[in-house]
Amino acid sequence: MPDHFVALTRRALAATALTLAAVTPAPAQQAAGDPLPSWRDGQTKRAIQSLIGRVTRPGTRHFVAPTERVAVFDNDGTLWVEHPMYTQFAFAIDRLKEMTQRDPALLANPVLKAAVDGDMRVVMAAGERGLAEIIAVTHTGMSQDAFNSIATQWLANARHPRFNRPYTQLIYQPMLEAMRLLRREGFAVWIVTGGGQEFVRAFSGPTYNVPIAQVVGSVGKTEFRLLPDGKSELFRLPAIEAVDDGPGKPVGIGRFIGRRPIIAFGNSDGDIEMLQYATTSPGPRLGLFVHHDDAVREYAYDRETHVGKLDRGLTLAPAAGWRLISMRNDWLRIFPGS
Amino acid sequence: MPDHFVALTRRALAATALTLAAVTPAPAQQAAGDPLPSWRDGQTKRAIQSLIGRVTRPGTRHFVAPTERVAVFDNDGTLWVEHPMYTQFAFAIDRLKEMTQRDPALLANPVLKAAVDGDMRVVMAAGERGLAEIIAVTHTGMSQDAFNSIATQWLANARHPRFNRPYTQLIYQPMLEAMRLLRREGFAVWIVTGGGQEFVRAFSGPTYNVPIAQVVGSVGKTEFRLLPDGKSELFRLPAIEAVDDGPGKPVGIGRFIGRRPIIAFGNSDGDIEMLQYATTSPGPRLGLFVHHDDAVREYAYDRETHVGKLDRGLTLAPAAGWRLISMRNDWLRIFPGS
Repeated sequence: MPDHFVALTRRALAATALTLAAVTPAPAQQAAGDPLPSWRDGQTKRAIQSLIGRVTRPGTRHFVAPTERVAVFDNDGTLWVEHPMYTQFAFAIDRLKEMTQRDPALLANPVLKAAVDGDMRVVMAAGERGLAEIIAVTHTGMSQDAFNSIATQWLANARHPRFNRPYTQLIYQPMLEAMRLLRREGFAVWIVTGGGQEFVRAFSGPTYNVPIAQVVGSVGKTEFRLLPDGKSELFRLPAIEAVDDGPGKPVGIGRFIGRRPIIAFGNSDGDIEMLQYATTSPGPRLGLFVHHDDAVREYAYDRETHVGKLDRGLTLAPAAGWRLISMRNDWLRIFPGS
Repeated sequence: MPDHFVALTRRALAATALTLAAVTPAPAQQAAGDPLPSWRDGQTKRAIQSLIGRVTRPGTRHFVAPTERVAVFDNDGTLWVEHPMYTQFAFAIDRLKEMTQRDPALLANPVLKAAVDGDMRVVMAAGERGLAEIIAVTHTGMSQDAFNSIATQWLANARHPRFNRPYTQLIYQPMLEAMRLLRREGFAVWIVTGGGQEFVRAFSGPTYNVPIAQVVGSVGKTEFRLLPDGKSELFRLPAIEAVDDGPGKPVGIGRFIGRRPIIAFGNSDGDIEMLQYATTSPGPRLGLFVHHDDAVREYAYDRETHVGKLDRGLTLAPAAGWRLISMRNDWLRIFPGS
């Protein structure tokens, strides 16, 4: 374990000791050498460690070759904060504000105007078509490279309204540790997101240590264009190619990864089919839902919400054998350095 | 270099010495330590080595970080033999024969009957719709896992009509060496094929050392299904999702790889846009076409052919700076162990 990591851990344990005064104290397990120091010792942590142990011990019954070890993580609400709105939607609104300053004619569209004015009731009332309109205006009509620059620049400057920190710092430290442990144990770690694939790729490397080719997400159509100057580009068209959510997640996993995951982390009903695909196959398998039940350190929501709803998933979990990760009880700290 | 590889090389050099009696003898360059021993010393080999050298020397102007080093290879005609017909089509016909034995009613369809009878004129006259019908009947209506088993079993038993060897042995040794060298130099090596992604994934690992998640190809639609027994599957539907050919290749590269390749190998007009995408960007870049000009050891074809046509590509190559790999002159041997 590198020194800076030990230092971070110590600092975090000191900090969380205050926050967690009302909760049982951290047991001895969170000592140096524990690969999951931000996970409280308990059934959830032990289930993850047990699954990894069972598939990686050579010569035992459930041993899985390293090339077959696949772990998948949803992004919004599973790896980073998704409230009060999906980060990508905050990006879209900020970009829309910029665009309407340069081109006020865009405000003639009532949905775009409502989004700029922060009138989310009007935006929501427009349903999926309204959202699609906002995404089309802000995410397409440019090259893939241009979009990447726009997204990267926004991520470097934007701040979360409650935590006043860059969104890329509002990632879950326990999940970083789980990803690191899985990689160390030979797993390929993939992100399978309902969000825009290119948006998540803009930060997946430095933020999660997940290479862009291991990010599967929703994508719009692109077109190859030869330009008059002899260069070429992939141009982003205002049309949807694939929605990587719900039943689209196992389809995306099949297309990109080509193997059934052994362990799958989600947090919302959009992750149900991904967890089903991972866990309905012989051999040790594990599906987990992050349960947002920590209004003090993050947010508390599940069945009644527009963002990250976990309703059917909560109902299905017990019979399916999926584990709930209680943010409040299972996680000793939430964010890196906090 | 492992011993068995040296042995193979020696055996191959001895064998090709006979075949190549009419061609200039192998120069000293093909000695032990040469990472491309099956490539004759010449402009093509030097262009590949020079490109790799220019982007991998730290501190020099054109240095490219390892995470950005991407190499792409077409499959049919670039990595393995594509005549007298695409291997996947030979698979489809064999499978169709099997299926019609069990279910003769299929022969009521004239295109399917012609395919079984080997009457390729009728099949070709039915155009793309006829081919799509054959592919739909033989490639869909089953789970992804079932298809993988069928393809794997066929590949283990089928033999090429001229060479009487398994298709997976009719791969190009010089390309295996190029892939190995590129990987050694930090490149991610991808296959970008117009063929079926799952068909190529069925052999890419053991045959090319390319993991299945680094194979991009044409795909049909799949559907996630929960089964009555509590298991689940991806079911292959008779509908096309993406054609990874021509302009579809850069689109597939953007979606799967997310980076512009530095070096691209193709052999037909279906690879033009992939080569354009790779080579129309600043910095050292290289596009190469395998030119099938060796009727003795393999096949000779380019402008006038139904399989692997290289017509526009031949015309565009000089101005675009793409190099032709002359199978006859640039390759000291064609197949491994030959």
